[in-house]
Amino acid sequence: MISPPVFFIFSLLLSFSHAAVKDFCVADFSAPEGPAGYSCKNPANVTVDDFIYSGLGVAGNPSNSIFKTAITNALVDDFPALNGLGVSMARADIAPGGVIPLHTHPRASEILFAVEGTVTAGFISAANDVYIKTLNKGDIIILPQGLLHFTVNTGSTQALIFVSFSSENPGLQILDNALFGNNFPTELITASTFLDGAEIKRLKAVFNGTG
Amino acid sequence: MISPPVFFIFSLLLSFSHAAVKDFCVADFSAPEGPAGYSCKNPANVTVDDFIYSGLGVAGNPSNSIFKTAITNALVDDFPALNGLGVSMARADIAPGGVIPLHTHPRASEILFAVEGTVTAGFISAANDVYIKTLNKGDIIILPQGLLHFTVNTGSTQALIFVSFSSENPGLQILDNALFGNNFPTELITASTFLDGAEIKRLKAVFNGTG
Amino acid sequence: MISPPVFFIFSLLLSFSHAAVKDFCVADFSAPEGPAGYSCKNPANVTVDDFIYSGLGVAGNPSNSIFKTAITNALVDDFPALNGLGVSMARADIAPGGVIPLHTHPRASEILFAVEGTVTAGFISAANDVYIKTLNKGDIIILPQGLLHFTVNTGSTQALIFVSFSSENPGLQILDNALFGNNFPTELITASTFLDGAEIKRLKAVFNGTG
Amino acid sequence: MISPPVFFIFSLLLSFSHAAVKDFCVADFSAPEGPAGYSCKNPANVTVDDFIYSGLGVAGNPSNSIFKTAITNALVDDFPALNGLGVSMARADIAPGGVIPLHTHPRASEILFAVEGTVTAGFISAANDVYIKTLNKGDIIILPQGLLHFTVNTGSTQALIFVSFSSENPGLQILDNALFGNNFPTELITASTFLDGAEIKRLKAVFNGTG
Amino acid sequence: MISPPVFFIFSLLLSFSHAAVKDFCVADFSAPEGPAGYSCKNPANVTVDDFIYSGLGVAGNPSNSIFKTAITNALVDDFPALNGLGVSMARADIAPGGVIPLHTHPRASEILFAVEGTVTAGFISAANDVYIKTLNKGDIIILPQGLLHFTVNTGSTQALIFVSFSSENPGLQILDNALFGNNFPTELITASTFLDGAEIKRLKAVFNGTG
Amino acid sequence: MISPPVFFIFSLLLSFSHAAVKDFCVADFSAPEGPAGYSCKNPANVTVDDFIYSGLGVAGNPSNSIFKTAITNALVDDFPALNGLGVSMARADIAPGGVIPLHTHPRASEILFAVEGTVTAGFISAANDVYIKTLNKGDIIILPQGLLHFTVNTGSTQALIFVSFSSENPGLQILDNALFGNNFPTELITASTFLDGAEIKRLKAVFNGTG
Repeated sequence: MISPPVFFIFSLLLSFSHAAVKDFCVADFSAPEGPAGYSCKNPANVTVDDFIYSGLGVAGNPSNSIFKTAITNALVDDFPALNGLGVSMARADIAPGGVIPLHTHPRASEILFAVEGTVTAGFISAANDVYIKTLNKGDIIILPQGLLHFTVNTGSTQALIFVSFSSENPGLQILDNALFGNNFPTELITASTFLDGAEIKRLKAVFNGTG
Repeated sequence: MISPPVFFIFSLLLSFSHAAVKDFCVADFSAPEGPAGYSCKNPANVTVDDFIYSGLGVAGNPSNSIFKTAITNALVDDFPALNGLGVSMARADIAPGGVIPLHTHPRASEILFAVEGTVTAGFISAANDVYIKTLNKGDIIILPQGLLHFTVNTGSTQALIFVSFSSENPGLQILDNALFGNNFPTELITASTFLDGAEIKRLKAVFNGTG
Repeated sequence: MISPPVFFIFSLLLSFSHAAVKDFCVADFSAPEGPAGYSCKNPANVTVDDFIYSGLGVAGNPSNSIFKTAITNALVDDFPALNGLGVSMARADIAPGGVIPLHTHPRASEILFAVEGTVTAGFISAANDVYIKTLNKGDIIILPQGLLHFTVNTGSTQALIFVSFSSENPGLQILDNALFGNNFPTELITASTFLDGAEIKRLKAVFNGTG
Repeated sequence: MISPPVFFIFSLLLSFSHAAVKDFCVADFSAPEGPAGYSCKNPANVTVDDFIYSGLGVAGNPSNSIFKTAITNALVDDFPALNGLGVSMARADIAPGGVIPLHTHPRASEILFAVEGTVTAGFISAANDVYIKTLNKGDIIILPQGLLHFTVNTGSTQALIFVSFSSENPGLQILDNALFGNNFPTELITASTFLDGAEIKRLKAVFNGTG
Repeated sequence: MISPPVFFIFSLLLSFSHAAVKDFCVADFSAPEGPAGYSCKNPANVTVDDFIYSGLGVAGNPSNSIFKTAITNALVDDFPALNGLGVSMARADIAPGGVIPLHTHPRASEILFAVEGTVTAGFISAANDVYIKTLNKGDIIILPQGLLHFTVNTGSTQALIFVSFSSENPGLQILDNALFGNNFPTELITASTFLDGAEIKRLKAVFNGTG
Repeated sequence: MISPPVFFIFSLLLSFSHAAVKDFCVADFSAPEGPAGYSCKNPANVTVDDFIYSGLGVAGNPSNSIFKTAITNALVDDFPALNGLGVSMARADIAPGGVIPLHTHPRASEILFAVEGTVTAGFISAANDVYIKTLNKGDIIILPQGLLHFTVNTGSTQALIFVSFSSENPGLQILDNALFGNNFPTELITASTFLDGAEIKRLKAVFNGTG
């Protein structure tokens, strides 16, 4: 007799039809956004392709960057299905001598994975202790939330690293761009960092800053 | 002199009129939904009846289900006032020999309360340890988040259980429906579970699955 | 050939033997306690009986209380397996005319379920709006976190209610005991509530307070 | 060569243009609100003035209040940039003999800072223990979430206190207004607090209550 | 003049010496564990090597497993520096025709990255919708928390996948091991899944179960 | 008749004696510490003085610092009662021309309150936008979590600011100390910031760094 299970399954789908939405909340960038993330796309319009992202499979071109590094992101703004799920990734292709410059992620810890090549990575703790290590292919390092860290390709070949974040939206503040890539007044940078004004102006020219 | 307190109270209501909304956020299913839950109904339109739900007082009819169990929910989708408050409930009426089939709740732990009758309940831990116990009237069991669990009416009378969840939206994944109640291809079920294809097809017939 | 799966299963148990602990963290009251809860009992010593509690099956005797109410708890301190799982329960047996006096739970919202009898329950919002309703058998009411609420048995028979909390440790502050059941100086109660000193002293006598 | 860094910076701004929004979420009171807070104002319309609030610099007039206290808030509803950031403040100007009456904050702990004058502050724990101390200029006291607390100006000069909350929206429930400043029926107040009906009616007259 | 900054820096280190600990909390498996994780290793004994893990650089041998898959973990129990940081990783080496069997993670969402080879991956939602896709090298799929999912190597070469979790301790419940790799009584498996007893006994033999 | 309430109150204290502990968790620095904070001091040994801190009432001496600023903290490590309560404070006394140098808090947002004097404060967003404003007495500014910010005394008199944090343990990373106050190798600073080596060495001399 088929109808009982059919009835049962339908009633289940019915009573859980809203709840099921909460299994995922694919971001709808056109709807309001709140502190916990983006509004959810109507689940009736969600397909398997919403859960797939192919951007990390393509190497970036590090020669386009003064840092000789190309970063490719798979954050919630690139991959809307991550909305509310607390994890994201990125890749960096780093030419020999290239660098991921000193930066922080305000809202996430990071695992950095050396997939190809040899890189030197490190972070500075709030106690101002310096933790630096050269990573060979296959090594990972954990970089705690909100602390300054960097990666340099200290090998002779292009390096590939993958990073995983503890948030779908970790944020990124690159020191050079924060200080020298905008209109942060030179005298206030000097006052708040003791950096020499001439050095600041030199770097503002490099990073396209003003003031 | 009455006016000072009046003034004081009004100014309080004024300065806290938005804040008061946050005491509760009755779900408005017609507004955008985000990772933290539904948008809030305008508090000016909220009445005491929004905070009351009567559905759990009515016994379901277990004979309508192949599992000889009727589930009645008081989750956020049934009772919008639970939105954002982190708790929900449900009841199950289980005929003798009936069962709440093996399932998980992806986002909540559960307290199961044996109100009437005798049931055997259990869960399997991630270490694959099996924790099973027969509950008599008045016993409760805690079922940790995300682990497979089940309940069987092993008594001779209809059983009544109430469950409490640590989320207003615990989610529900019933193993039989997830495997056999949809178009999950038989060959992939076999590959990912080692279940025999004939057994899978037998159960797809029972649970109205295809493929 | 059996050994491969055996090997596979063992290696799994091995690599997840610590992780499995985290499925549950049965409280060890003899070990240090932190803001997130109690330390975990060694999982090697955890049995199914740790996950079972029978205290809610026994009616309390409301005649032992001036409130004509008996409360029986299934909180983390009564049921250690709830530690870290974010849910707990309690029962109240209320004689006709009995009351669960005005109180708050600092860390949890509550679902109150009228299982037997007729009770009048309500809460006051931060906007000082009063939400009161008479609940018949089978009705539930949601009481948002941290707000004053109460229940009175307005029926002619003993009432039984079950409550579910959104925390394993909701906390309880009963207004009468907080004001009149300790050494809170009468002049400071008067200054901070405008209650008349004589009325305070009358209630201190009832609730065994001093000062 | 300038274009590479330009390219690099632009591509960064591009790939993080949404993520940057999440650094802050200035409340848009005209858009939907959810359990986690208000929707975010379009960051393109956010200026530095959104992050500034001047209301706490102006002393309130305590003579307007029966409590001889004036409260000025810097909560999310007063200062929308706090939305989602988990912190807020308020000030109280308390005339000699004035009081911040007994109250709770359902969703936040509070640090109370005695900036000017001498005040006696205290809270009652859920174990009904009373913690009271006279604070001199420069002292702070921590008042744990959801517990009844009060402050009395026990000095001879006007007192100024600043408070900091662990939420942008702590909520406020003042005992007198919750009991006596609305239509909470006198008989239910008596039943749930044992307060004498005449005393309740006296205070309802003071706090503008009815019923 | 050197001494002022020296004094300043020292006083800073002093006043933040405890706080700095909180930047990281390397697990001390010998100390008590709570719901939020392991106790912290004394930071004075933490070195850069605590933040490095090399296990993911070594391919496992899939021929040791009946699933033709080798899993290598970098979870908190393998890499103690992840404690409290909310992220972890693992790798799977999958022979042609091999599989990561149907399983759930009770406490984490997962990003699965196809690094080498071609795999077919999918999950079943709580609405019993099936989301399946064949991933080529470089594709990622997001698998929401607590839902059943699987991966099959549908290519002709060994596949390598890396996974990232939104928790340092995601948990793992493999359906076959949970049902057939322990002493879960056959009659209760039948009752709670409708699986045929003979099929259960066949699989208990494969997965080394009893009862 | 007194004994009933006595019995009632005692039984309450009994059944909630553990729960009451959770109202607060005064840090015991001698016991294990975990990701959620310090272990709790035995509540039997907690007195009102544990909840009081007087350090913020005393002005620091800015002349002891190269930054012409003195910082006095009321964080969990200074004030153990804050453990687990999610709020803390600090004060800064800033001489004319003095500065709170560019820094971040990895785990908290901050409200900065200009209590005396005139200061210019600002932060840089992850989009590299600069938000700077001169604050007069009584103004507050909100500084979102994890972003670089600074304060300069741009007035002619000593400034006093109070700050409130959304964590009891916000962390502090001062850019100058992180780069120049330790053994961070000059060549790696140059590689990761493009700062000139001579400028780095000049500042290492100022901030007592090596390498």
